[in-house]
Amino acid sequence: MRPTTAWQSTPTSTELQRVPIERRDLRDDDIAVRIDYCGVCHSDLHALHGLVGKPTDGLVPGHEFTGVVTAVGRNVTALTLGDRVAVGTCVDSCGECAMCLAGQENYCYQGPTSTYGGTDRVDGTITKGGYSREYVLRSRFAYRLPDGLDPAAAAPLLCAGITVWEPLRAAGIGPGSQVAVAGLGGLGHLGVKLAAALGAEVTVLSRTPDKADDARTLGATSLLTEPNEAVGRFDLILDTIPAPHDVESLLRLLTLDGTLSVVGFPRPIELNIMHLTLGRKSLSSSGTGGTKHTAELLAFCAEHNITADVEVLPSSQVTDALARLEKGDVRYRFVLDLSDLD
Amino acid sequence: MRPTTAWQSTPTSTELQRVPIERRDLRDDDIAVRIDYCGVCHSDLHALHGLVGKPTDGLVPGHEFTGVVTAVGRNVTALTLGDRVAVGTCVDSCGECAMCLAGQENYCYQGPTSTYGGTDRVDGTITKGGYSREYVLRSRFAYRLPDGLDPAAAAPLLCAGITVWEPLRAAGIGPGSQVAVAGLGGLGHLGVKLAAALGAEVTVLSRTPDKADDARTLGATSLLTEPNEAVGRFDLILDTIPAPHDVESLLRLLTLDGTLSVVGFPRPIELNIMHLTLGRKSLSSSGTGGTKHTAELLAFCAEHNITADVEVLPSSQVTDALARLEKGDVRYRFVLDLSDLD
Repeated sequence: MRPTTAWQSTPTSTELQRVPIERRDLRDDDIAVRIDYCGVCHSDLHALHGLVGKPTDGLVPGHEFTGVVTAVGRNVTALTLGDRVAVGTCVDSCGECAMCLAGQENYCYQGPTSTYGGTDRVDGTITKGGYSREYVLRSRFAYRLPDGLDPAAAAPLLCAGITVWEPLRAAGIGPGSQVAVAGLGGLGHLGVKLAAALGAEVTVLSRTPDKADDARTLGATSLLTEPNEAVGRFDLILDTIPAPHDVESLLRLLTLDGTLSVVGFPRPIELNIMHLTLGRKSLSSSGTGGTKHTAELLAFCAEHNITADVEVLPSSQVTDALARLEKGDVRYRFVLDLSDLD
Repeated sequence: MRPTTAWQSTPTSTELQRVPIERRDLRDDDIAVRIDYCGVCHSDLHALHGLVGKPTDGLVPGHEFTGVVTAVGRNVTALTLGDRVAVGTCVDSCGECAMCLAGQENYCYQGPTSTYGGTDRVDGTITKGGYSREYVLRSRFAYRLPDGLDPAAAAPLLCAGITVWEPLRAAGIGPGSQVAVAGLGGLGHLGVKLAAALGAEVTVLSRTPDKADDARTLGATSLLTEPNEAVGRFDLILDTIPAPHDVESLLRLLTLDGTLSVVGFPRPIELNIMHLTLGRKSLSSSGTGGTKHTAELLAFCAEHNITADVEVLPSSQVTDALARLEKGDVRYRFVLDLSDLD
């Protein structure tokens, strides 16, 4: 086994402790990654609060990280020592179902192996995430980080970025499209950048008017706090709001055949389908992405020089980062620098 | 005013009575239509039971009918005396909003004028529907009935037909598509015919196994009573079930990027958005259609020789038809022959 260090909760507390952990010895198709930067995602908060995943020996969060390859299994040919790589929310899948064959391993019918809190398909252990100095995974779930992308600012592309990229691509967004982004946080600010780079006209819907300048800097044409003037306007609304909210009022803002994609808080709602009927609208959602679109996103971001707006903190400040994230006090993504775990 | 005869409810009863009514004198852009055949739609039942539309002097249902032009206003050039025409659920709209300009007058932002129970945009009277011997309307909301289409069997195309046509077209259904039709009634049987004619492989989902032969005759490859074997299969599910049912179990049957279009019962539901997240699925709906797609549908039906499977009854049996419809005892659409009103 390979010793390393991680930030892990305990069975009785969500407080993260700096603890020694072990990674597995490399299998033939594995690589080891020295983690340099790991983004702090709302899912990490949800997981720590017990909404998803309950490993009995505590949780190591973190599923958007970048680093450098430090070891390779004997069958690995696509990556080599020293390569810059990025890893997202999925580290394995069955590889045989229709979803896996389509490159959408995130929807694997057997269940993808989550980067943390998942169950390893070979040895049955519970996966531990990227709030750690090293990770070991199947090489095909690591992406080469394109030259020119800052490794700290690129880390959030692997969860926040792909989460908004997939609905943008599924909706065919391009020049002439009208896109709204509801909620300007970790997901939302990347949604604005990516939609604008795809050629869309982008509007931010936010109750925080002091983000108007940020919205324009990110690529939006305006920020609306009272969206009633935009009824019937948008082809796609990326709903990144990470808390319960009124979905039906957002549906009113869609144009004919428009789509509301709920990616920030996919939970039970009450919905009068008539809000979809009038205007032939769609309610949709998606969850991160698979290898095909993640690779596509990284290439697009390299071409358009897009990364997240990040606040980088030493990983020793992880508790503070999580507390501030919970209050929405971040513009727009915390990234942990794991070098202090050496 | 123009005297005619209709089947109308009373302020205190849903029972339809044969009564004399009046149609307006023709405006310059009006036509008068001698109604020969009018389909009996589930919406008529809902309306009579007070779910929609409550005109104080009783209701004349009927919004899918065919007939012959018997008079034309001075500005009408597209139609002339003796032309065979068809009329659907919408008889006027603002003509100026984005929906009207797109030919989707059914979603007019000012509200379309419904064929019955609506409010006439000029004189403010409540519209009376096609369970009647004559109708007067703006000529642009009457469609020329293509040669070769039987006028009785074509009448249901104007509501049931366009209701399933729009989601089929919006989803881009064609050769290679996998389409399921949930519920094999008035809407569903036309959904099967149209989807098959578009080139899709069609599966019927029904709790009534004795409709399996019908399903195949209509163009489906199979009828499933236990759809668990079809998890992840369909690009589009046309949900025509006219009563409360479990929408989430249908979502499981969709493939990646698949759409569940609820057209039979667009009412409030409880939905866990996570059922959309896994597989990037969409929940959608639509309501009848506008002039653009209705004309397109009639041309398609003429080309492919598609009409509804109907049971034609003299209009004097309307009460029996409604009672049998409520029990689902129809294969697959009642059509009233209004000639007995002369």
